[in-house]
Amino acid sequence: MIYDVIVVGLGPGGISAAIYAKRSGLNVMVLEGNMPGGLLNYTNVVNNYPGFINISGPDLSMKMYEHFLTFDIDYKNEDVKEIVYGEVKKVVTEKGEYEAHNVIIATGRSRRSLNLPKEEELRGNGISYCAMCDGHFYKDKDVLVVGSGDSSLEESLYLSNIVNKVTIIVRGDKLGGNKDLKEKVEDKDNIEVKFKSSIESLKENDGKFTGVVLNDKTELDASALFVYIGFEPILPFKCNEEMKREDGYIIVDKNFETNLEGIYAVGDIIKKDLYQIISAVHEGASAATAIVRKLTKKN
Amino acid sequence: MIYDVIVVGLGPGGISAAIYAKRSGLNVMVLEGNMPGGLLNYTNVVNNYPGFINISGPDLSMKMYEHFLTFDIDYKNEDVKEIVYGEVKKVVTEKGEYEAHNVIIATGRSRRSLNLPKEEELRGNGISYCAMCDGHFYKDKDVLVVGSGDSSLEESLYLSNIVNKVTIIVRGDKLGGNKDLKEKVEDKDNIEVKFKSSIESLKENDGKFTGVVLNDKTELDASALFVYIGFEPILPFKCNEEMKREDGYIIVDKNFETNLEGIYAVGDIIKKDLYQIISAVHEGASAATAIVRKLTKKN
Repeated sequence: MIYDVIVVGLGPGGISAAIYAKRSGLNVMVLEGNMPGGLLNYTNVVNNYPGFINISGPDLSMKMYEHFLTFDIDYKNEDVKEIVYGEVKKVVTEKGEYEAHNVIIATGRSRRSLNLPKEEELRGNGISYCAMCDGHFYKDKDVLVVGSGDSSLEESLYLSNIVNKVTIIVRGDKLGGNKDLKEKVEDKDNIEVKFKSSIESLKENDGKFTGVVLNDKTELDASALFVYIGFEPILPFKCNEEMKREDGYIIVDKNFETNLEGIYAVGDIIKKDLYQIISAVHEGASAATAIVRKLTKKN
Repeated sequence: MIYDVIVVGLGPGGISAAIYAKRSGLNVMVLEGNMPGGLLNYTNVVNNYPGFINISGPDLSMKMYEHFLTFDIDYKNEDVKEIVYGEVKKVVTEKGEYEAHNVIIATGRSRRSLNLPKEEELRGNGISYCAMCDGHFYKDKDVLVVGSGDSSLEESLYLSNIVNKVTIIVRGDKLGGNKDLKEKVEDKDNIEVKFKSSIESLKENDGKFTGVVLNDKTELDASALFVYIGFEPILPFKCNEEMKREDGYIIVDKNFETNLEGIYAVGDIIKKDLYQIISAVHEGASAATAIVRKLTKKN
């Protein structure tokens, strides 16, 4: 059997793509080797997915997954090893091979971590990787940001409007972001930058983050640490090498199709401006709808 | 006081824009003269907003509104009469004038109706204006579609993959959609077109739609009637005449900004490919975030 579409990944983008495709009468298969929900499972509280007030990331993830299950979509818990490109696409997993006219890649990305002891346990208890998701919870508190690139500066500026004070921890002796952002950071009264600094260890009390110890042994107390040392797009399988990417992210057009006909990508794996749950969900719906329209015209 | 942003309209797009703007620390005001939720209030069941299984339109609308209320955003139940364009924008209502650096228009659109007796009561009980929203509920049933344009044909093709039989009711003696769509409709075994036909009255039993009486007095029995005689974008106030529009819809760029600096538009009021709840919500988030980024760079 050749599927109309195989969705690779079952985070918010993949779930939405699968639901939209299935509701439109397509033959859909979903492949996901890990637990459903993706990065959402590592988000403390979500308060920007309209309709759900202060829901935990794992809870929202579970609600989406339960919603997905009501559609009786072919779903296999298998890791994809390769996508072989052609008019019919072959998706190879550790256990089998599946064919489809279209593939939607929704594999997401993961946060680059500091690789420090206790970092994993403190995720969601003071250690965050998303100011727009969690900044709100630290209104009028002191927070730390680690990282010196554009996103570190952007998110520090974002946080400075919400929290009492932001301290940015930077390894080198200058900020790496664009000029505009650097000037804004320098102009902000409640942002301080600690140059030539790195985090040696994390402090905690009763399972909550309380501060850091720097390489020069000084201690910084704070309610939260936002880690902006980057993300890693997740694409742990072989793909046609002609698929256009930038910094590992997949380049798509306005229908979320890649430069390879019939290969689409949605959610955090694509190069874009806004990495939000609601955006991934919209993109999944858009890609599925674009495929429906294409097939409606063909058949 | 000059607001950072005034959001006009409190459907899914406006609610999302307001939440994203407020969470980012902006001064936000929302103006809506009618009940919150917009067109969503007239949708029978929503099953394509991931996380909510078969929720009624009004219930989802209420959940979004309650979510909105938790943010303590300035909100006035006033009809907008005019947006006066300038570096500072003035939004004039029946009761007052409010100023903002940015305005997000999220006024949506309404369905053009047949203007027949009982049509209002049967909305959601067999009369629908959205195949992608409701088609799923008529799996293997017979349905009617009225209208002859692209969207009527597109949605009939969409429905033909789900339902038993689609009968399209067309006033003239030919289909008005594009060639491609017309050919597909003609090739489909389970789509019939009734030319030179119009609906004279609606039949119902116990509050549920059961069929129509045509102008030649023949009766057609069916489980649902999908009305595709068009939408009307809602913009019932004066706006700068230089704001670019097409068929009444507002033209925006990828940040959802119009050709007038600081005037944004999101949701069903804009010209676009996908008119879905999830899209409006994404667009609201995107416009708000674009404003946040602009102000972050300025301040």
